[in-house]
Amino acid sequence: MTVTSPVPTGLASATGFQVYDTTLRDGAQQEGINLSVADKLAIAPLLDELGVGFIEGGWPGAVPKDTEFFKRAAKELDLRNAELAAFGSTRKAGTRAADDTQVRALLDSEAPVVTIVAKHDIRHVERALRTSGAENLAMIAETVALLVREGRRVMVDAEHFFDGFRFDSAYSVQAVLAGLEAGAEVVCLCDTNGGMVPPWVTAVVAEVRAAVGPDAVLGMHAHNDSGCAVANTLAAVEAGCAHVQGTVNGYGERTGNADLLAVVANLELKYGLPVLARDEQGGSGLADLTRIAHAISEITNISPFARSPYVGASAFAHKAGLHASAIKVDPDLYQHADPSAVGNDMRMLVSDMAGRASIELKGRELGIDLTGRADVLARVTERVKDAEARGYTYEAADASFELLLVEELEGSRPQYFRVESWRAIVERVGPRGTPATAEATVKLHAGDERIVTTGEGNGPVNAMDHALRQALVGVYPTLETFELIDFKVRILDAMHGTDAVTRVLIEMTDGKQSWSTVGVGPNVLEASWEALTDAVIWGLRHHGVMPR
Amino acid sequence: MTVTSPVPTGLASATGFQVYDTTLRDGAQQEGINLSVADKLAIAPLLDELGVGFIEGGWPGAVPKDTEFFKRAAKELDLRNAELAAFGSTRKAGTRAADDTQVRALLDSEAPVVTIVAKHDIRHVERALRTSGAENLAMIAETVALLVREGRRVMVDAEHFFDGFRFDSAYSVQAVLAGLEAGAEVVCLCDTNGGMVPPWVTAVVAEVRAAVGPDAVLGMHAHNDSGCAVANTLAAVEAGCAHVQGTVNGYGERTGNADLLAVVANLELKYGLPVLARDEQGGSGLADLTRIAHAISEITNISPFARSPYVGASAFAHKAGLHASAIKVDPDLYQHADPSAVGNDMRMLVSDMAGRASIELKGRELGIDLTGRADVLARVTERVKDAEARGYTYEAADASFELLLVEELEGSRPQYFRVESWRAIVERVGPRGTPATAEATVKLHAGDERIVTTGEGNGPVNAMDHALRQALVGVYPTLETFELIDFKVRILDAMHGTDAVTRVLIEMTDGKQSWSTVGVGPNVLEASWEALTDAVIWGLRHHGVMPR
Repeated sequence: MTVTSPVPTGLASATGFQVYDTTLRDGAQQEGINLSVADKLAIAPLLDELGVGFIEGGWPGAVPKDTEFFKRAAKELDLRNAELAAFGSTRKAGTRAADDTQVRALLDSEAPVVTIVAKHDIRHVERALRTSGAENLAMIAETVALLVREGRRVMVDAEHFFDGFRFDSAYSVQAVLAGLEAGAEVVCLCDTNGGMVPPWVTAVVAEVRAAVGPDAVLGMHAHNDSGCAVANTLAAVEAGCAHVQGTVNGYGERTGNADLLAVVANLELKYGLPVLARDEQGGSGLADLTRIAHAISEITNISPFARSPYVGASAFAHKAGLHASAIKVDPDLYQHADPSAVGNDMRMLVSDMAGRASIELKGRELGIDLTGRADVLARVTERVKDAEARGYTYEAADASFELLLVEELEGSRPQYFRVESWRAIVERVGPRGTPATAEATVKLHAGDERIVTTGEGNGPVNAMDHALRQALVGVYPTLETFELIDFKVRILDAMHGTDAVTRVLIEMTDGKQSWSTVGVGPNVLEASWEALTDAVIWGLRHHGVMPR
Repeated sequence: MTVTSPVPTGLASATGFQVYDTTLRDGAQQEGINLSVADKLAIAPLLDELGVGFIEGGWPGAVPKDTEFFKRAAKELDLRNAELAAFGSTRKAGTRAADDTQVRALLDSEAPVVTIVAKHDIRHVERALRTSGAENLAMIAETVALLVREGRRVMVDAEHFFDGFRFDSAYSVQAVLAGLEAGAEVVCLCDTNGGMVPPWVTAVVAEVRAAVGPDAVLGMHAHNDSGCAVANTLAAVEAGCAHVQGTVNGYGERTGNADLLAVVANLELKYGLPVLARDEQGGSGLADLTRIAHAISEITNISPFARSPYVGASAFAHKAGLHASAIKVDPDLYQHADPSAVGNDMRMLVSDMAGRASIELKGRELGIDLTGRADVLARVTERVKDAEARGYTYEAADASFELLLVEELEGSRPQYFRVESWRAIVERVGPRGTPATAEATVKLHAGDERIVTTGEGNGPVNAMDHALRQALVGVYPTLETFELIDFKVRILDAMHGTDAVTRVLIEMTDGKQSWSTVGVGPNVLEASWEALTDAVIWGLRHHGVMPR
């Protein structure tokens, strides 16, 4: 009883398989994403590096900044693997394709590939487009034919295809044939509303395949409304689609598009299909998947989702506990894929279940070799357990954990400064609605000086951060580049009101990397102060600054 | 050509179908989730309200706070639909099940259902457990048999089942049979490493089904490492599994578990299987899916993911543009499911109609009849929308919502006191480890007096609470019985560090009932002050105290 690979016989190799990215067009429909021309010009080379075959850049003619993108892309981008695709619509009802200004703009974009969205659900034709089924077929055929005559590679996005097929399959198939017969290279079946589940996709694609014959190239464009976008895309490939569309990190309207990164990682690693472009050594961008995913989230300014398949910060993170020693010996028994294949890392989360084995692994991850240091391991394990019992968590605070490790290894933590006292004051004078003011005063010793500073802020933690860095920046100018970028508060035992313990997690950055620390205390300000000072100390130490 | 429902002939009805939630156990393995006993006691009734059949509460005996959870749950929880399940392990190798303290603790938990995790991959048996295949089978059989003899319903979580089956299917099937023959009600096949794709699941489950016969109940427990957890769960159901496991919001280690909310919504709405418990009117918790998902994220303190299928804030949000009017006329052409079926809203159409209806309902729930008060409804709807855009949430703050309603109905909120100013000071004098002191001063007018009080506390909010109640208790002695019992902080936009908006939820009690309020502000103290004063005002009003 061996389970064989599910790759269908019709697709035993990836020759001619097309990976089509629509992050810049459909991905940009996501709430909260707004890409400038510069953003798009920065994302495209990353997609090219990944090795996708097509990059859909936008809708020239309809969206002014997309017109500009194609103009600048033609001059500024030097893509090795990918072709740029312009997205647009069929001609309007009752006009000639050659007279349609929107179609004209697609040609003017000079994109070598043009993808035309066309209605494939008769209800949308009649109710939204308010034209006849026959006229819609003519719109598809004439627009495709014109673009092919003008030397473009033409693809058709069959909008609302699956819902349309389930309502009136005969019409939907006619529309597919209209595009193919007019010369479209691919007709991509779209689950525009995103509600399909894999068996429905399998059934529909099989019927379309039977209707269009074995040589036509079909594609799949899925949305994630049922939580099945990746699986629906794989189901379509198994049923004979040789073109997949998706977006980086699954960006897109509503629940997003199919996450193209998970789709290609699955096709490459689980189906054994080399769908990404290869370099001379046979390497692909897959090994850089995680870095590319994160680089693109920097540009879109959407925080990466830690639980993303393959590329998430948590994707290969284990709460060690019982199994740490087993994981150390046989990592492959505990992970579905080798994290290095997608440029990610196995991470051990230091939690209260942690034993020495997981702390040793964690040390290695931070570049600190604890092999043979049983004494240190024992003390660190004890301290971690004790600290976690008091509310600390090192899972999301690597920098605090590293300082604890350094303290046990070197006898003490780096002494960049000595705090004499701090004080924070928040005051509101006036009725509800009057803004409060916050200030903090820090008195400390650093570099043989006694320094007293007062900082203001929109809240006490902000004010403390300002006062602390202002006090130290003269002695340690490196601090100039540090910035507090995230601040999380958790009350740990909710049943004791404000008598509960407060945990604060802080993330600081120097513009290149970021690091996280934890503080715990009977109130938010004490906890914040601890996390703040740890963050400053870790940052100075990692910049090679010596205590003065 | 009509695509029929893919429900397999073997599962034409949902009779006996089991929905098993493991949010409190496997979900709590997620990085950043740390549930207290109080958190678990608050989440369980929400799961019960949803209508799941089983709630796995934790591992009594192995985790002290889980032992406490089962003890308190037996006394404090009154579940209508769900049975509590205790999770544990088979007996250790080379011992008797009856002598195993861990197995003993499962019995002592008094949970009616016990779920035993057992190795089903021969490599894990030999390399991690370091015992023989035969001993592992005996461990399964004897542990299950003992628990069954003691009157428990027993389920087996077949750990690493899929990977094990693909390596040595004969052994994995033997292990399944060992559990079933010893009396396990269900053997749940686990994709522990989460790397399966649907066709593999289909193939494996079909082979297992053939080996165990038609009557054995098989389950599916999926993780999302390939991005296919929901689809893998559906594939398993199609192949004959009648028990599904998952977690709310897909919480879990690494990429998370199968999102149980998407699984049940798909089974109910797309497969037509009524898998959730029904009330007398035939209703289920599905219509409250979105509210329940969000209420649980408040407790886990993990920001809801906007793109979550069915329940995400963006799940039914349309970027208006071209199709707005078409969507308004024919919404069903643009959405895969009716958002109201899962308690969500099509967001573009969030018109007063939808909003007003729910506010009218909410008012009724609070004992305030708004029938025929279209003017009030319109103003409240507007204020709620505006406030929620600024970070307020009334879902978990009924008392604040009621004060808002009262204000619109009566022209102003009750004026029990008028605040002139407040100030909070936190100070630490001395090195790390020295406790800080907190004090707050409040100046206010009540009952014709100007009152100035200073309160101390272990933190600024505690001090503010003391100062406020001390100032007022002479005028309103009822306040003597009030106590602050819960305090939750959330930073709303994590990308702006301490410049972000802070939301505070406060729960106050008079010893008999408790009520919750919300405050929002640029810092935790301003937000806390707003929530504190609202809580005092609501409490006084509900005790029938007149403003003096």
